[in-house]
Amino acid sequence: MNKPYYAVIFTNRQSEDLEGYGKMAETMESLTKKQLGYLSFESAKNELGIAISYWETIEDIKNWKANLDHPEAKDKNKCYSWYKARICKVERDYEFGD
Amino acid sequence: MNKPYYAVIFTNRQSEDLEGYGKMAETMESLTKKQLGYLSFESAKNELGIAISYWETIEDIKNWKANLDHPEAKDKNKCYSWYKARICKVERDYEFGD
Repeated sequence: MNKPYYAVIFTNRQSEDLEGYGKMAETMESLTKKQLGYLSFESAKNELGIAISYWETIEDIKNWKANLDHPEAKDKNKCYSWYKARICKVERDYEFGD
Repeated sequence: MNKPYYAVIFTNRQSEDLEGYGKMAETMESLTKKQLGYLSFESAKNELGIAISYWETIEDIKNWKANLDHPEAKDKNKCYSWYKARICKVERDYEFGD
């Protein structure tokens, strides 16, 4: 790792009302990946969903968050019965395997 | 949030050789939850597995990592074909729902 980077950990439980979820998720993904400073994305989901996006700077995260208030992404709140978002500074990383 | 806390994001792909995985996972969980400074744990798994543990201080993470080299947890490496671990400082969090 050359320098610190940032992560947004988004842990969530989906609500039962999933109308519009597919389109909302697609819009969110598309908005995220073309956002300045975006590095990568990881997710997995069972009862609990975890989605983590990685960013170059904290400013990039602020700009991304502002963009997520875009009208096309407005359904995001009603699709979750619970979520917790954490903004993190990645201080160190290490990798094994290929 | 009262003060900063820390997260270890462990993203992984399981190997095909899962002999000993169940016992190893159980040992890891037990060692983790009784470790000083442990706060909470979240995980989800599809093709990609994501396991996140939260800690009071970075020192607690160092002590935990030393404990994971315990002989009973020695199978952990052969159970993953790939993993990436990231040590993070959680700078801000917010929650929605119940």
